[in-house]
Amino acid sequence: MVKGNVIVGQSGGPTSVINSSLVGVYQTALNNGAKKVYGMMNGIQGLLQERYIDMSDYIRDDLDIELLKRTPSAFLGSCRFKLPDAEENEQVYIDIFRILDKLDVKHFFYIGGNDSMDTVKKLSEYAKVKNSDITFMGVPKTIDNDLAVTDHTPGFGSSAKYIASVMKEIIRDALVYGTDAITVVEIMGRNAGWLTAASALAKSEDCDGPDLIYLPEKEIDIGEFVENINQLKKHKKSVVIAVSEGLKTTDGKYVCEVNKSTIHEDSFGHKSLGGTALYLADYLSEKTGIKSRGIIFSTLQRCASHLVSRTDITEAFMAGGHAVHAAFEGDTGKTIIFERISDKPYQIKTSVCDVNLIANIEKKVPDEWITNNNTYVAKELCDYIRPLTIGELLPFTVDGLPRHLFIYK
Amino acid sequence: MVKGNVIVGQSGGPTSVINSSLVGVYQTALNNGAKKVYGMMNGIQGLLQERYIDMSDYIRDDLDIELLKRTPSAFLGSCRFKLPDAEENEQVYIDIFRILDKLDVKHFFYIGGNDSMDTVKKLSEYAKVKNSDITFMGVPKTIDNDLAVTDHTPGFGSSAKYIASVMKEIIRDALVYGTDAITVVEIMGRNAGWLTAASALAKSEDCDGPDLIYLPEKEIDIGEFVENINQLKKHKKSVVIAVSEGLKTTDGKYVCEVNKSTIHEDSFGHKSLGGTALYLADYLSEKTGIKSRGIIFSTLQRCASHLVSRTDITEAFMAGGHAVHAAFEGDTGKTIIFERISDKPYQIKTSVCDVNLIANIEKKVPDEWITNNNTYVAKELCDYIRPLTIGELLPFTVDGLPRHLFIYK
Repeated sequence: MVKGNVIVGQSGGPTSVINSSLVGVYQTALNNGAKKVYGMMNGIQGLLQERYIDMSDYIRDDLDIELLKRTPSAFLGSCRFKLPDAEENEQVYIDIFRILDKLDVKHFFYIGGNDSMDTVKKLSEYAKVKNSDITFMGVPKTIDNDLAVTDHTPGFGSSAKYIASVMKEIIRDALVYGTDAITVVEIMGRNAGWLTAASALAKSEDCDGPDLIYLPEKEIDIGEFVENINQLKKHKKSVVIAVSEGLKTTDGKYVCEVNKSTIHEDSFGHKSLGGTALYLADYLSEKTGIKSRGIIFSTLQRCASHLVSRTDITEAFMAGGHAVHAAFEGDTGKTIIFERISDKPYQIKTSVCDVNLIANIEKKVPDEWITNNNTYVAKELCDYIRPLTIGELLPFTVDGLPRHLFIYK
Repeated sequence: MVKGNVIVGQSGGPTSVINSSLVGVYQTALNNGAKKVYGMMNGIQGLLQERYIDMSDYIRDDLDIELLKRTPSAFLGSCRFKLPDAEENEQVYIDIFRILDKLDVKHFFYIGGNDSMDTVKKLSEYAKVKNSDITFMGVPKTIDNDLAVTDHTPGFGSSAKYIASVMKEIIRDALVYGTDAITVVEIMGRNAGWLTAASALAKSEDCDGPDLIYLPEKEIDIGEFVENINQLKKHKKSVVIAVSEGLKTTDGKYVCEVNKSTIHEDSFGHKSLGGTALYLADYLSEKTGIKSRGIIFSTLQRCASHLVSRTDITEAFMAGGHAVHAAFEGDTGKTIIFERISDKPYQIKTSVCDVNLIANIEKKVPDEWITNNNTYVAKELCDYIRPLTIGELLPFTVDGLPRHLFIYK
């Protein structure tokens, strides 16, 4: 049974479906007796400044609900705020609980990734010590898919769908002149290669997919890299390579940082501000003599709400809804995870997991799914990702453009 | 009345709707009695190597027709081939006409931009001199919208829709932390600023749009540029700037080439390989002390068939179809243009225009539509572009990804 009011916040990097989880919390809380659902502005950081809204002031009707599901980025704003340990700085905790008490909040939901789960963990532990009856629940969110325990994370499926769809368009574009060309596409993921791996989904009946895929889990030998491309060029005019932004060379340096040091000191003798893809494209142009270009997916891959996965949107909503049910039954210090019941047909169920098993742990692409001497990914990895990308949720367009629900604009 | 067979080619840079014009030529030709519709592979360049297909070998049914409309880039492949003058090199002309005669081709269609219209012009003039009865017609295509006479060009509306839609998503993403941020977005257009101007459509009830818009028609004073941003930063946390890839500084240099010369000789003291946006973002980071990032739309803006304008798709088809009707009635040395009959409601009609009035002429954004001391565009410009972006044509998805029709893959 619900006690008092509800508050919900969003934290960490934006995704295309984080607002669907927000809707899941909001609707489920109201449907189950919550009087008020507050929204923290800019997460826990904004809450500490007593910046919050009554969400029903902004969500006027069911059309707004649908619009919010189609709105990218975090509707409430986000933050990157690491809660200090209570022993170090108890005042932060005293302030948070004072504000929650003032609002008669008994259920706190935090939608985010690794760091946000750390916040849920710390607040729930502090509540336990202080005998507070406020519950703290996490709702997972990250395009990076790097959370432990859960089968996958809300946000990942939509980014994967975007990356693979656009990769197909880029490959087709690169074929157009029938001339020699090298395209290096840079995909997000500093330490975990799930998103870069998703580019392999582009391989289908109508598309060869990227020719090489380099994940951050494996360091890259720049000599072998050039040799691999030279080999491919013997029988292919257009070569397309997917690289993770977090790719490192065998000496442990990020490729994108290779030339952040003095130009004369780096081992390649190049200077680039553009990161991994532009650096590699420039390097390949020089080494192969073939016109090479870099394409950076940049923020588009995390906020392209015009091309989301319906599966992902639905699961993000479910995660928010399940968190509310669990909290109203008394759960705290927990987060929602997905368990895969079946591959074919794809079926998952949501369940509740101790936040300690998830906070601060990073899940990488396992070795057995990185193939071809670390230049491609296994079919099993594609089979794992593909169901997460299925289905569409179309934008509501006004004057030709997708409409969003907003607090800020 | 149709005489003999038809051949069609695609030339210049890819767009999202160039295949819709191809379908317009193909279907209209078959519906009006053409026995065979050949496709040149890689345009006139491929034709010279006798590389062509019978299009009906690849388009098996009406579903394929619909798939082809949803396929980005040029289905037949493209080329960048400037036909020499007949006086300089008649052999090329002799070869082309020999191949056309061999195929019993009496109607030649070429879908492309400025340079392609030059090809149509030269071939039709040569035919006249030689008393050939082969007709040569152009079908306009360019995302750049820089063709003279016509109200606009097929391809532009879809790119404009993509640019404005993604601009909205980027602006929303940039607001998420509520912290100081500068985002510089680089948009295609080396000499004409139509595409960069289209970013202004993002300004709507739910979005402030980009704060500054810099077109290649006006040179940029880098000191004023920084000052404009400093002024904006006084009352805005997140500033988003749209810049054309072809932006030049007041000394006439392309911004993206400022530091292609020796690092010590350029006036800014920076080196960047990433072009206009990355260079400017880097420069702003240093001058304002605020975290600045560059985003390059790159090829995505010309080949995002997953986000096309239905209006654009339909008009591209109409242009192809009208070209066939005109040719079958004996027109040659002409191209199709759009005339705007009415703004509200938006209505156009296609008509036929002498290719001499279009070939090799570049239409830029007029002065009266560049406002705010060259940092924004007029409402009238938005009113002109907006109707071209209306409506969607949704991809056919297979396994979660848009499916394309293909010859190469």
